[in-house]
Amino acid sequence: MKNHIAVGLIGFGTVGSGVAKILTNNAATIRRRLGVPLELRKVADLNITADRGVPLPRNLLTTDAREIFDDPEIDIVIELIGGYDPAKRFLLEAMAKGKHVVTANKALLAVHGEELYQAASRAGVDIGFEASVCGGVPILRALTEGLAANRLLSLYGIVNGTSNYILTRMTEAGQPFDIVLAEAQKAGYAEADPTFDVAGIDAAHKLSILVNLAFGCPVNFKEVYVEGITGITPMDIQYATEFGYTIKLLAIAKLHETAGDADVEQESERPATPAQARGPGELEARIHPTMIANDSPLARVGGVYNAIQVTGDAVGDIMLYGQGAGSMPTASAVVSDVIAIARNIRGGTIGRVPPTGFQADQRRPLPIRAIENITGLYYLRFMVLDRPGVLSQLSGVLGTHDISISSVLQRGRKDGQTVPVVMTTHMAVERNIRASLREIDALPAVSSPTTVIRIEGEDR
Amino acid sequence: MKNHIAVGLIGFGTVGSGVAKILTNNAATIRRRLGVPLELRKVADLNITADRGVPLPRNLLTTDAREIFDDPEIDIVIELIGGYDPAKRFLLEAMAKGKHVVTANKALLAVHGEELYQAASRAGVDIGFEASVCGGVPILRALTEGLAANRLLSLYGIVNGTSNYILTRMTEAGQPFDIVLAEAQKAGYAEADPTFDVAGIDAAHKLSILVNLAFGCPVNFKEVYVEGITGITPMDIQYATEFGYTIKLLAIAKLHETAGDADVEQESERPATPAQARGPGELEARIHPTMIANDSPLARVGGVYNAIQVTGDAVGDIMLYGQGAGSMPTASAVVSDVIAIARNIRGGTIGRVPPTGFQADQRRPLPIRAIENITGLYYLRFMVLDRPGVLSQLSGVLGTHDISISSVLQRGRKDGQTVPVVMTTHMAVERNIRASLREIDALPAVSSPTTVIRIEGEDR
Repeated sequence: MKNHIAVGLIGFGTVGSGVAKILTNNAATIRRRLGVPLELRKVADLNITADRGVPLPRNLLTTDAREIFDDPEIDIVIELIGGYDPAKRFLLEAMAKGKHVVTANKALLAVHGEELYQAASRAGVDIGFEASVCGGVPILRALTEGLAANRLLSLYGIVNGTSNYILTRMTEAGQPFDIVLAEAQKAGYAEADPTFDVAGIDAAHKLSILVNLAFGCPVNFKEVYVEGITGITPMDIQYATEFGYTIKLLAIAKLHETAGDADVEQESERPATPAQARGPGELEARIHPTMIANDSPLARVGGVYNAIQVTGDAVGDIMLYGQGAGSMPTASAVVSDVIAIARNIRGGTIGRVPPTGFQADQRRPLPIRAIENITGLYYLRFMVLDRPGVLSQLSGVLGTHDISISSVLQRGRKDGQTVPVVMTTHMAVERNIRASLREIDALPAVSSPTTVIRIEGEDR
Repeated sequence: MKNHIAVGLIGFGTVGSGVAKILTNNAATIRRRLGVPLELRKVADLNITADRGVPLPRNLLTTDAREIFDDPEIDIVIELIGGYDPAKRFLLEAMAKGKHVVTANKALLAVHGEELYQAASRAGVDIGFEASVCGGVPILRALTEGLAANRLLSLYGIVNGTSNYILTRMTEAGQPFDIVLAEAQKAGYAEADPTFDVAGIDAAHKLSILVNLAFGCPVNFKEVYVEGITGITPMDIQYATEFGYTIKLLAIAKLHETAGDADVEQESERPATPAQARGPGELEARIHPTMIANDSPLARVGGVYNAIQVTGDAVGDIMLYGQGAGSMPTASAVVSDVIAIARNIRGGTIGRVPPTGFQADQRRPLPIRAIENITGLYYLRFMVLDRPGVLSQLSGVLGTHDISISSVLQRGRKDGQTVPVVMTTHMAVERNIRASLREIDALPAVSSPTTVIRIEGEDR
């Protein structure tokens, strides 16, 4: 049995230096867990002269990632450079050379995950990516192991700290998006180019990974519906509060299975064919600003914290909560993956838990329900000229599209001026919402496009 | 490689029938994860005629647990009968016969855990006990795997659903303990004899297990300080609210390490001797009603929900939240353990993660700090005759014991009658609190023993 496990690290930036710190500072704890030391044998980065706040012997550092793949002593390669290329090439090359790999690269996994998972299985190596979703929160391990007894039914996540910080600050301070974004950038909670975060793309990357693990269903990232937070105004946050809601950027996934697709039915003696296994089910996978009840656990997740609520048929609701980004929390997940793989190496086993938690031949592609076909509750803010008959016009159009109104709020009447009229609906089909708004937004009394925010929760 | 994994179940009660339901209803999902079926091969219970709500072939049922140990086909034995005997005998016998075991028996593990862990390692089998703490919440797996990169520093848990339900209801309804307990018993949230739950013993069992896994430190259950919720009054809950606190029965563990015990220092080339490994550290491990800030995540965990907040040196604060009891949530944890062990069997590995997450020879017994020696914030409610000079007497005694007052609340002055005077302290040593109360409770103006509730949080 190997008397130590050697690790090579590609990418010595924010997370990489956190990994080096943990491997250095917590060496004794890790050894107490593993039985042998984890040795950081080589670190590759284009810049090896910058001070990373962690003292490493000069001869550990290299600018050539190849030195890591080519080192026969290295058991596990950690990729923390981000982006698609050369990250993907590096991972494939490391695996082809028999190295186990660990990555935090959510964008890469969301788009090329299948290829990487298959490469791992072909090469007979393990791939760990706990750090790709929600930093240090061990959510992927929960999906693939801790909740493995369950048929998972739904998943709601606050998975982007930047967006959550901005929405939290907008709610607390009543200030508009632009001002809070600038403040977040100053405080280091938003990037100079925040598009990936505030447009929901980062959250969609994470949701693609989560859906794959929760439902055993490969997801085409492009099919995930994505809407960011740039259109959220203090006015809508204010109305949300009055209705008892908080606005969060949520990653939402739901499984819809018809009775014929139930587990028991599939238990035939002959192996499931792809057609059988596929079943008539559908998935929802969407990212958008969402109103949720103030007293729901997710509503209380503030600032840069992340949280994921999962519902399983046996376990009921579970929530995991913690810091979703940052050097040390993300490095915590990376090193925990390294320890898991080191335990596999020590235990002489590979592929014990498949990358997605499901056997490769047992994964079930499910169609993603088009956003027009989802059913839900809606918040609608109309901007209308305040004159007699407008409210009846609005509700008339909604009625013809099968949309029934749950509550209405209209205030600050100023005859002949533009005022907001706010409604929440009972359960409605998004297609009908869209059709009714096309009509409503063309009415002469309607002065600007209607704001729509989806609501998750009880129809009340 | 085995083409199926066979399971024997001892105990067909609330959780056992949940396990049978999951193995039946989720057979296809489990097979998709594992690659082979999990077969429920035999179920033993003293009562095999009762309707458990899950149809099993009659020939699966037996009243003789021995049929399960003696069946060479059975790979994994699940023990769900609870109590010390014969549960312990059954587990030891199953392991001696080469069966892996899974149990939800927290009382047994808290008192005889070491013996069982050692028996597993001697027999070369795995032992799973995720279900013993917080039902379906995968907290043990988080401590031993998901957070394995961390030196864990502290742990705060709401781990007893009955107590949390009672405190939540007392807070909402403003009613006394006895009335709410009766209501909880009626609703099925409290047992006919609720002592284990409301006296904190169940929570102490769980804390013993948690401490062992979090810090790699075997705990003598008797050293855990335990105080239940029977003394909590609506008056104290009311005052807590006024101070911005919520009262929860918390399981608390904290690691105190001196600098000389730091991880880095231990990284010498020669193997750590027991003396070195022990180090000068100390642990706190205690169960008691605790005031925590209303806006802290744990304060918002209501009803029968459980939650555990863990702080690691890298990950920061993490919280896991979910249903801590009940048939299906607990069975979810049991079956997830069975799947984990089945994956080990399929992967040809045993003892991949040691039962406590630390190598048996690397666990570090640490002394538990006596409750008199802990430092914290305190809520003190004095019942005094309302006459001049009493407040100065109280604060005078506290002052001589080095206790400094943070806030005082006195209301409803009725000359010469008994009134509550409430104080919160700055950081103080419990020994001094106790000494001062011995003096204060002997004062002629003090009409009944002072109520003390510990506060966790910032000194403010």
